[in-house]
Amino acid sequence: MAAAVSLAERARGRSTPNPNVGCVIVQDGRVLGRGWTQPGGRPHAEAMALAQAGDAARGATCYVTLEPCAHVSPRGPACADLLVAGGVARVVVALRDPDPRTDGDGIARLAAAGIAVTNGVGAAEARRSMAGFLARQRFGRPHVTLKLALSLDGAAAMGDGRSQWITGAEARAHAHLERARHDAILVGRGTFEADQPRLDVRLAGLERRAPARILLSATPEPGWTTLATPAAIATLAGVDTLLVEGGAATAAAFLTEDLVDRLLLYRAPIVIGGGRTLPDIGLGDLAQAHARWTRVDARQLGSDRLEVYERTGRD
Amino acid sequence: MAAAVSLAERARGRSTPNPNVGCVIVQDGRVLGRGWTQPGGRPHAEAMALAQAGDAARGATCYVTLEPCAHVSPRGPACADLLVAGGVARVVVALRDPDPRTDGDGIARLAAAGIAVTNGVGAAEARRSMAGFLARQRFGRPHVTLKLALSLDGAAAMGDGRSQWITGAEARAHAHLERARHDAILVGRGTFEADQPRLDVRLAGLERRAPARILLSATPEPGWTTLATPAAIATLAGVDTLLVEGGAATAAAFLTEDLVDRLLLYRAPIVIGGGRTLPDIGLGDLAQAHARWTRVDARQLGSDRLEVYERTGRD
Repeated sequence: MAAAVSLAERARGRSTPNPNVGCVIVQDGRVLGRGWTQPGGRPHAEAMALAQAGDAARGATCYVTLEPCAHVSPRGPACADLLVAGGVARVVVALRDPDPRTDGDGIARLAAAGIAVTNGVGAAEARRSMAGFLARQRFGRPHVTLKLALSLDGAAAMGDGRSQWITGAEARAHAHLERARHDAILVGRGTFEADQPRLDVRLAGLERRAPARILLSATPEPGWTTLATPAAIATLAGVDTLLVEGGAATAAAFLTEDLVDRLLLYRAPIVIGGGRTLPDIGLGDLAQAHARWTRVDARQLGSDRLEVYERTGRD
Repeated sequence: MAAAVSLAERARGRSTPNPNVGCVIVQDGRVLGRGWTQPGGRPHAEAMALAQAGDAARGATCYVTLEPCAHVSPRGPACADLLVAGGVARVVVALRDPDPRTDGDGIARLAAAGIAVTNGVGAAEARRSMAGFLARQRFGRPHVTLKLALSLDGAAAMGDGRSQWITGAEARAHAHLERARHDAILVGRGTFEADQPRLDVRLAGLERRAPARILLSATPEPGWTTLATPAAIATLAGVDTLLVEGGAATAAAFLTEDLVDRLLLYRAPIVIGGGRTLPDIGLGDLAQAHARWTRVDARQLGSDRLEVYERTGRD
């Protein structure tokens, strides 16, 4: 399933309106076919993997990160039917598809055809990989990642706003990679005025993966999609994953509305003192603050440390 | 040498006016004698280890965390002379003794007697173990550890001052262990008024290791040693290791004077927003903030994380 999730990553941000799914077909330890959702959403991952495997798929096992679809569309057949026709003996699924056109019907159709089905394998990784699709399905809005680059004492900038640089080159390169993995980036009016941010992806080979640019502001800005409130992200068409980059007031606005699903925290080993820290987020008491965030990843980036947290209870 | 440092830890905070030293005498893989500075400073670690080893010390190797002393005192003979008389073949030293009465003379006397001497083995660990003694020798003041218990966004308390609890039980127990390892604890007037802190050691078996209590305040307080400024720590007799516990203004006062040697950072996985963060520490620009702190330890304590930093360039 790890291989299937890894294939699904190839489709991240390019499979709209369909989820980015990965699929591997295996028999006797040999990989017979690999697939991932193609640009624009078709063919599906299973169709691609089955086409590669051909007749060899008979009696094989299919690993797929999302339940095969049960609905026929003008753009292609249902994957559950394709798998039955292909003759696979077993299907291992990471996540049930919340799309009401499938939602268990794909698994039922496979089982009815005598195929052994296992569900829930590698669910956490698959969920992370399809976070955008799942947030759109469940909450009707994009999956939101908040990026913060902070000193040990929690400052995103000096008291007068200077913030170049808190973190080092490795952390900044990683942040650009995260940009490339999102459909859109949002900044607030303060960051827009102060930094005139390009919000592009400055990594060799990924320059063309620059996401859409969104401004959180009461006043529209030419050339920018402007939202008046955090909740308005639900209206963004074609944006399933949103990276909120700053500044502190914008971060606080999203946290206050509990609209942050994932925290990307780059921490530099420096002490600033009197810096710009996170303003009020409407916390009633300390007990409320606990158990909201779960650390899911941590790594060293040069002298900085990256920690990734997920909002508890969103899976 | 690791074993010798570990023995030295037994004398930490109890060897005044002498440094806490550890010593192991070894021959053919067998430990013949172990010693550490005894309460009140005498006997020295080498004298204790030699007494245990007796005649077996002839031809043996002696590992000691500080250069053996070269000065005879009314309280005992010079350890360099004892080692020569004991007949050891080799002495391995972690650190040269900065005390002007020795300062290389101990090593020279051993070498003159035909003993093979190696210096600098395990220096970093020995330096950490004797940090109080070394700060007193080099800077004429105690070694200062600043403890901070912070949220992800750097808050030590909510905006209204509530701070019970930011960190969990494991982190608080660790903080009590750190108290037991220091000669004195200092708090500021704000923490004193708000929390009426006991500053005791609430760990079974260590209750009697409660350090002296110091207050940073312009106004004296009955029952407390009161200092008007951070620099006045130099006047504290019998205090070689000081733990600064809070609050944010006191932390900033010590950081502003560059009087913090070690940062003890307990980080809880919570976001507070609008909390009490570190005030101004007189930083001119961001470049000044970099490369001042080196992480020397990190560990998980329940859901919290402890990071230990040392001020760069103090060794």
